[in-house]
Amino acid sequence: MIETDILIIGAGPTGLFTVFEAGLLKLKCHIIDALPQPGGQLSELYPKKPIFDIPGYPSVLAGDLVDNLMEQIKQFQPGFTLNEKAETIEKQEDGSFIVTTDKGTAHHCKAVAIAGGLGSFEPRKPLIEDIEFYEDKGVEYFVKDPELFRDKRIVIAGGGDSALDWSIFLSNVASEVTLIHRRNEFRGALDSVEKVQELKHAGKIRLITPAEVTGLNGAEHLESIDIDENGAHRNIKTDYFIPLFGLSPKLGAIANWGLEIEKNAIKVDNSLDYQTNIEGIYAIGDVNTYPGKLKLILCGFHEATLMCQSVYNKLNPGKKYVLKYTTVSGVDGFDGTRKEAEKAVVKSID
Amino acid sequence: MIETDILIIGAGPTGLFTVFEAGLLKLKCHIIDALPQPGGQLSELYPKKPIFDIPGYPSVLAGDLVDNLMEQIKQFQPGFTLNEKAETIEKQEDGSFIVTTDKGTAHHCKAVAIAGGLGSFEPRKPLIEDIEFYEDKGVEYFVKDPELFRDKRIVIAGGGDSALDWSIFLSNVASEVTLIHRRNEFRGALDSVEKVQELKHAGKIRLITPAEVTGLNGAEHLESIDIDENGAHRNIKTDYFIPLFGLSPKLGAIANWGLEIEKNAIKVDNSLDYQTNIEGIYAIGDVNTYPGKLKLILCGFHEATLMCQSVYNKLNPGKKYVLKYTTVSGVDGFDGTRKEAEKAVVKSID
Repeated sequence: MIETDILIIGAGPTGLFTVFEAGLLKLKCHIIDALPQPGGQLSELYPKKPIFDIPGYPSVLAGDLVDNLMEQIKQFQPGFTLNEKAETIEKQEDGSFIVTTDKGTAHHCKAVAIAGGLGSFEPRKPLIEDIEFYEDKGVEYFVKDPELFRDKRIVIAGGGDSALDWSIFLSNVASEVTLIHRRNEFRGALDSVEKVQELKHAGKIRLITPAEVTGLNGAEHLESIDIDENGAHRNIKTDYFIPLFGLSPKLGAIANWGLEIEKNAIKVDNSLDYQTNIEGIYAIGDVNTYPGKLKLILCGFHEATLMCQSVYNKLNPGKKYVLKYTTVSGVDGFDGTRKEAEKAVVKSID
Repeated sequence: MIETDILIIGAGPTGLFTVFEAGLLKLKCHIIDALPQPGGQLSELYPKKPIFDIPGYPSVLAGDLVDNLMEQIKQFQPGFTLNEKAETIEKQEDGSFIVTTDKGTAHHCKAVAIAGGLGSFEPRKPLIEDIEFYEDKGVEYFVKDPELFRDKRIVIAGGGDSALDWSIFLSNVASEVTLIHRRNEFRGALDSVEKVQELKHAGKIRLITPAEVTGLNGAEHLESIDIDENGAHRNIKTDYFIPLFGLSPKLGAIANWGLEIEKNAIKVDNSLDYQTNIEGIYAIGDVNTYPGKLKLILCGFHEATLMCQSVYNKLNPGKKYVLKYTTVSGVDGFDGTRKEAEKAVVKSID
């Protein structure tokens, strides 16, 4: 059982920054995320895109913002349960919660902060018969660990940045990379398109367009796929099939936790602390809704901050909280590190 | 008469970021501030101190944060009325406002955003007879324009960073710099103290400690000051006297605008849009109060953002506002500039 003070569901920017604000109040955090890495859609969907509305950043790449947040929270040593989805929640008699994931990992916490963004990102699955049978037996919707494909034959399907970028990356890992797309045209960053072009000419990527995967074959594990190439049937031997057709966000199991839901978002009390209708469960960032709500990263930061204060006050009844400015008091990490402004000296001049 | 959509009172980080969020909604902003430069206390009190709780910045110097915010809002061309204090407000029949400063500058606007921080910073004045008479006639509480002191004799009083740093800076501008402090010890950054020590030995700064200024003399303009140096009286000829004894924030004239005030802060409706009890007047950042309020810069950013949306909705009744992400839509400045992510190409690979 993983023990923590605040269990954060969602490792997007709001979830990550929560660790910092909680840390200032000496509260430990643990984060669950369905994706294989922190950052939410910033890492998964647009790491190289600039964001222009983060206060104090005229422009920042989404991936860099995530890196900076990870650096900012490092000293508070957050725990991570990645690649897993929060599935069930049980409120204990003492008001604490046990949250268990789809893979059975159990977390015991004093408060839950749902920072789930638009939901957990579910891959858009192609409509191919028996595809569920081959999941984890040759069909992968994410590249969680490139080493899985070391010296294997792989087929990637898709026409966007993910398909292009993983084809490029895995051309140095897999023994054979085939990229299949139902159109001749790809949509992506110019340099990615050009790089795939180059690797195709160098014989490092086999391109089949316009074509679609129509069937999967193999007894215990995927062995080959059927494709329809411009009306003609073809069979291709492969160890892995990686369809990269985008992700669609789903609130998922959280929708069954008894929370008040409105338009696929969780209603919270914005007049106080962004708590949901269940005491001890908060919702912050894009996943929540309230009058005037804006789904902006900077709003999630504010909501996370007020939420942490509320948790602190509940866990320390009667203790008067005095806000300390980091500029003045510095920041003490759980790892023993300390960040602080250079001290003024008191010194006579002679 | 200066015309604008949103008149912002206070050029601290919250006021500055308001320009950006308003700009995204095509609303023009103008900012009034009592200080001679933008940035509020970040520029005036601790430009070289690191802040650790700006989301996405593991550490940022206060002065750099202000520079970054100025860069971020540049394309929305905010107007500035600096060195002046908002004094009176008159609501017009059409719901707009006229705000006039202590120097008589009038501003006509559709909405007012009070982002006044802890208040306007009033200099702590030393208790010297007739000091008010000499204000603007040789007594200066701020260094607004160093050129005023070019080739003049100046006396600076104080023992902190401001006194040290301006003594250093002006030793290259003024013909004669005298630094007076009532103790032998100075409190400031080590390198500032050491630099003053060095300049003293080089004969570029005259140091008189422990001493206090006790009188000011001159018919039309300051001509000399009296000092008490360890019990002995002394007279020093000087053109300027600059007492730098710190600033204390005062809500000032705004306290008389009919706004609901609680503990020196302005009450706002945090359940919606941070509006005050007067329609069309908002209060954002450290100057406001509501249940659970935290006086943090990141909270001001959020409040400014929701406030701008509210103003937009009021000025455009019935028009449905659709939030656009800067990542997707880019940012169009009023100056014709455009910031946007690199476009994806649609390209076939042959």
